[in-house]
Amino acid sequence: MQITSEYLERAIEQLAKLPGTGRKSAQRIAIHLLKQNDEYAQKLAQAIVDLKEKVTRCSVCGNVSDSDPCKICDNPKRDPSAICVVEEFNDVYIIEKSNEFRGRYHVLGGVISPMDNIGPDKLRIQELLKRVGEDDQINEVILALNPDAEGEATSYYINKLLKNYEVDVTRIAYGIPMGTELEFIDEATLSRAFASRNSF
Amino acid sequence: MQITSEYLERAIEQLAKLPGTGRKSAQRIAIHLLKQNDEYAQKLAQAIVDLKEKVTRCSVCGNVSDSDPCKICDNPKRDPSAICVVEEFNDVYIIEKSNEFRGRYHVLGGVISPMDNIGPDKLRIQELLKRVGEDDQINEVILALNPDAEGEATSYYINKLLKNYEVDVTRIAYGIPMGTELEFIDEATLSRAFASRNSF
Repeated sequence: MQITSEYLERAIEQLAKLPGTGRKSAQRIAIHLLKQNDEYAQKLAQAIVDLKEKVTRCSVCGNVSDSDPCKICDNPKRDPSAICVVEEFNDVYIIEKSNEFRGRYHVLGGVISPMDNIGPDKLRIQELLKRVGEDDQINEVILALNPDAEGEATSYYINKLLKNYEVDVTRIAYGIPMGTELEFIDEATLSRAFASRNSF
Repeated sequence: MQITSEYLERAIEQLAKLPGTGRKSAQRIAIHLLKQNDEYAQKLAQAIVDLKEKVTRCSVCGNVSDSDPCKICDNPKRDPSAICVVEEFNDVYIIEKSNEFRGRYHVLGGVISPMDNIGPDKLRIQELLKRVGEDDQINEVILALNPDAEGEATSYYINKLLKNYEVDVTRIAYGIPMGTELEFIDEATLSRAFASRNSF
């Protein structure tokens, strides 16, 4: 077999390393790029470089940010009394999109997972305790971790540590998602929905 | 909603324009890039820039290439008597990978498609006639277009034009793919397999 363009090959090779992208998708993307005007490829390449060079982490909450502290931590209009603890910065995006929460965040950077060799020391838990300990305005920590085994274990761990602080620890409600039918709900969710029932 | 990193947003926006990539996949890719070491992002960005800046087209066969003429057209070991006509440069890659064909190629750049406003003048058909007319060594043109309506129409069109030249026009065989069972073959393929039957 004869390769006529090493540059095309190299682009396909690099693109194929992206998550969810195999050789075929990488080829399709490379062909697409070849057909686009130069400006798009330039913009894409620049965006990738900027992503690595200019995106930093907020030293307060751990969220991705172009500035430190981030715009949310730095915004005097955000409610200073509540901190919402999430696993990853992507969760901040999802919660912000819902416009349901006006407080500030704390991004752990993962969850406790012995299988993946992630202990509490690899997460931003000490930073959370420090924040809660030093800032008298904080009176509620809302845990919003994913409802899986690791998320549960991490929530329990943090809750235990926060017992030593004068702060309410709450957790977002897990239950039947709105708009679905009971028929399609798994048993674990149903069981949680019953256990967490409230008076009507 | 508050965006803490415009650069992250911009990267997601650009990545979401790639074929087969929506906002969610783009987010996953951006997060993956953020977690990778700098080197990979640099390489990827450079590969994209090079793809646009350094990949050109072979003026003889129309294939993508880093040089003009391309390595296949320029290779004295390739059989000068046969030209294989394909729709896109990606087809060259597929055929080269099979190591079945040792001649040279001619990339049309598409197929005749009135629906998409692509007439014969937008394809490299005149270039094919010129090649065949000027090069006495060429004695076979093998049509290897996709077996759909547009591919068929384009094959017929080219075959008609090549009647005026001293060259055999052949077509790769369409029929039952090897290793499958008749049960799973569509009617059009089965019908073609019967019509193209050969003596055993």
